Amino acid sequence: MDDSDLAKNAANFVPFTPLTFIERSATVYPERLAVVHGTVRRNWRETYDRCRRLASALIAAGVGKGDTVAAMLPNTPAMVEAHFGVPMTRAVLNTLNTRLDAEALAFMLDHGEAKVLLVDREFAGVIKAALVIAKVTPQIIDVDDALYEGATEAIGSIEYEAFIAAGDPAFAWHMPDDEWDAICLNYTSGTTGNPKGVVYHHRGAHTNAVSNILEWDMALHPVYLWTLPMFHCNGWCFPWAIAARAGVNVCLRKVDAAIIFDLIRSERVTHYCGAPIVQSLLVNAPDAMKVGIAHAVKTMVAGAAPPASMIEGMEAMGFDLTHVYGLTEVYGPATVCAKQADWSTLDIGERARLNARQGVRYHLEAAIDVCDPASMVPVPHDGTSMGEIMFRGNICMKGYLKNPTATDAAFAGGWFHSGDLAVIDPDGYVRIKDRSKDIIISGGENISSIEVEDVLYRHPAVLAVAVVAKTDAKWGETPCAFVERKAGSDVTADELIRHCKAHLAGFKVPRTIVFGELPKTATGKIQKFELRARAAAL
Amino acid sequence: MDDSDLAKNAANFVPFTPLTFIERSATVYPERLAVVHGTVRRNWRETYDRCRRLASALIAAGVGKGDTVAAMLPNTPAMVEAHFGVPMTRAVLNTLNTRLDAEALAFMLDHGEAKVLLVDREFAGVIKAALVIAKVTPQIIDVDDALYEGATEAIGSIEYEAFIAAGDPAFAWHMPDDEWDAICLNYTSGTTGNPKGVVYHHRGAHTNAVSNILEWDMALHPVYLWTLPMFHCNGWCFPWAIAARAGVNVCLRKVDAAIIFDLIRSERVTHYCGAPIVQSLLVNAPDAMKVGIAHAVKTMVAGAAPPASMIEGMEAMGFDLTHVYGLTEVYGPATVCAKQADWSTLDIGERARLNARQGVRYHLEAAIDVCDPASMVPVPHDGTSMGEIMFRGNICMKGYLKNPTATDAAFAGGWFHSGDLAVIDPDGYVRIKDRSKDIIISGGENISSIEVEDVLYRHPAVLAVAVVAKTDAKWGETPCAFVERKAGSDVTADELIRHCKAHLAGFKVPRTIVFGELPKTATGKIQKFELRARAAAL
Repeated sequence: MDDSDLAKNAANFVPFTPLTFIERSATVYPERLAVVHGTVRRNWRETYDRCRRLASALIAAGVGKGDTVAAMLPNTPAMVEAHFGVPMTRAVLNTLNTRLDAEALAFMLDHGEAKVLLVDREFAGVIKAALVIAKVTPQIIDVDDALYEGATEAIGSIEYEAFIAAGDPAFAWHMPDDEWDAICLNYTSGTTGNPKGVVYHHRGAHTNAVSNILEWDMALHPVYLWTLPMFHCNGWCFPWAIAARAGVNVCLRKVDAAIIFDLIRSERVTHYCGAPIVQSLLVNAPDAMKVGIAHAVKTMVAGAAPPASMIEGMEAMGFDLTHVYGLTEVYGPATVCAKQADWSTLDIGERARLNARQGVRYHLEAAIDVCDPASMVPVPHDGTSMGEIMFRGNICMKGYLKNPTATDAAFAGGWFHSGDLAVIDPDGYVRIKDRSKDIIISGGENISSIEVEDVLYRHPAVLAVAVVAKTDAKWGETPCAFVERKAGSDVTADELIRHCKAHLAGFKVPRTIVFGELPKTATGKIQKFELRARAAAL
Repeated sequence: MDDSDLAKNAANFVPFTPLTFIERSATVYPERLAVVHGTVRRNWRETYDRCRRLASALIAAGVGKGDTVAAMLPNTPAMVEAHFGVPMTRAVLNTLNTRLDAEALAFMLDHGEAKVLLVDREFAGVIKAALVIAKVTPQIIDVDDALYEGATEAIGSIEYEAFIAAGDPAFAWHMPDDEWDAICLNYTSGTTGNPKGVVYHHRGAHTNAVSNILEWDMALHPVYLWTLPMFHCNGWCFPWAIAARAGVNVCLRKVDAAIIFDLIRSERVTHYCGAPIVQSLLVNAPDAMKVGIAHAVKTMVAGAAPPASMIEGMEAMGFDLTHVYGLTEVYGPATVCAKQADWSTLDIGERARLNARQGVRYHLEAAIDVCDPASMVPVPHDGTSMGEIMFRGNICMKGYLKNPTATDAAFAGGWFHSGDLAVIDPDGYVRIKDRSKDIIISGGENISSIEVEDVLYRHPAVLAVAVVAKTDAKWGETPCAFVERKAGSDVTADELIRHCKAHLAGFKVPRTIVFGELPKTATGKIQKFELRARAAAL
């Protein structure tokens, strides 16, 4: 049969975009709660109106296709609204990591060519400093959040509420011309060299938002707590997923165990995401904080594999933990450690071992594989052959902004190269061994820093740990462990080394153990580059 | 910012297709049950292997892109497999309505240019007759289903099991070259003139399958009973939705209340779909059949609005009923009567009135509106202004095969014209008044046949009813009602007319009432064209 005359037209082909999600929820569930922030409670009709106000006000301010609107905001209603209002103008949203310094921020504002910048007054100081360095001169909109109790400084030309008040709540916003058009710009953490600007498209944002729903079996009207920063991969695309489900965004300015448990209790939070550091904080919080939470709570963890103690702690709280894995380049998580029915009968150690894996591809990502990065030959599913994790599908970035060399390298051979080294277990689950650059080569043998960390995490006195390579005249490199002890513990280096010797081959045992707080990124990732510098200086 | 250098490549752009769903479920949940049919129980690994065998055997038989594989099959495992195995060759699946006559089937085989035809032996006779008329000479593959107990006749060159046994279970199947490529061909019921061949693409099949999951909050591993024919809009895209959820396809050769309740009980069926006639059959089945079903069952109904008695009956059984609406051209259902939390507090009459509406767009359809078909001006949301239902989005067909005139008319003005007349209520829900061609014009006044039917359905003696126009010398047309009475009832025409007069304006009251069984299509739709002919002959 020849159907070559059946072309796309306005009726049967419409760009995929997460913007249609908020339109539907505001139409079908206008009165349902959408945003909670302190005493502010807004429904989807109001939130949609505010997003349209923002879009029309931005357009009046000269914003349009090809422009960038940056946001230096904690998880406040303005940040939720920016995820819709900015792309409704066909412009691109660049959320900035609020823990960065002025120099890094200036680089991003310049590289991303920010035309407008939304700034929570908590960050007025660092942004003022950044703008002294930056070449661009974006229009600044101050966001005066009532829940911020620190000193106030207006650095912009107008406050957010006044800005959107001038907008049109019935504004006929713009669909993207093409689902391939950019929707967001996210800078990588830049552990080495300048950060790279990862460009997301509407198609991918739509796809990962829906995939989040599928991974979590997320029914209509979830109550989602914003423990995960929205500046991090656009909150793993959850602003759009929650809009698609007509759920509630429970905003949160900062991660604080007491506030989090209060909100879980009072708002009946059903879902939240967080790095291991956030999950540990909750697991280790005093029991008194956890009283009175009997409803079902689901949580996703990513950033590092959850140790057994975390899985056990979550079970004790009655929280259902899902382990996901991803990178900025794949819109946040793009694999899930999908649970199998028979795992529930296993003991905690075995369950932890299985759940600690990176798992399988997200429902709507086309493929994941582990390959030799040179030959692109996939590794056998034997749990021991190591290769690099590769992704392919519609949950992969457009590429790096103004960086064709890095883009080409990332997509070499028709796959996105994650930089993470892994094996595939016989059941098809991917298990990370290490970042390419985190492998320690000692006497010609590869040592996975994660393997050593896992053993140290099993010691009851260890709160957090990171193992890096330390240059060694004889062995080339040796493992050096930085350890954060639990409160009240005075465990010694000798005892931890004895513990490692009991569980590891001799060449993998750390030669050096350093105690102290670990340097972490805004999202709770331990900054190994900083530890490598410390190890070199020892 | 200028990101125009960031082009699509093999890593970041992969065609959307429901074929990736089965690959994922077979990889992640290989041992989970996929297909149940009598004593046959196959998991997803086995089912995926069989689909790949089918694909490779079809390719060996010369099938490839541009070819059509037709299927004359009840809801058996072979029909599930055809939904994957055929498009894995890049060919198009044309499922045939098994209740059609030889002439109609011959038309479809010729028009669709069938190259291979899968035939369940129950339909060997009618297919043999069709092939005498048809110009095409497809290769026939007989499907010998052990559950068919009638007479057997082999009309093909090979039996299905032998055919796929020669295929390769590890066959590297073909992704579509483009997500816009055709995946299926479905003929409309053709109530007037020749049936039209509706072409589906991979993008739309993927999108509606995922949307089905969202409409139903369908969690992983549903147990889906095949009460809805898979030949009807590819079972509303549920073969692909169930694969995406790694669910169970409980096959069913024919709709029989005792068998259905047995399967719901023994397989713990969680979901099924059906036309009103199927739902009525279950509601009105003897209580003894329903004993022992305590688990949650969700059902979708489409084809006509569910009357109050059906909603009440479903509630009595404890089944959760969702009303959806669509057409072949929009992949089956593309609107849903989304329930609102506060409806549950209303009385049954009001709940039935609200649930009987066609509702709002499917999550992943871009738009629905009700417009004047000439001016394309949308009607106000006042519950009274009538217009034609229009769809726009990625759940709309490519077009009609080899019928540019009909395709252009269907897509006029950038919307798909449904042919259904409706109003929009103040809450934004669409409510059908009638098919364009079902409106009765009496003395210059429009009468909605649905309105008259609704009144008749409220009479306790009425099992089924259809109202059509009867030519009248004085009024032009008058309403003529065909009524199927409940078993044991001897209600008279006079009594029904009195009932109508109590609830309808005088000009809307049927002038003629005819008792008897109503002619229905394979999917339980009442055949009004047949009744119009009967009315004309009265």
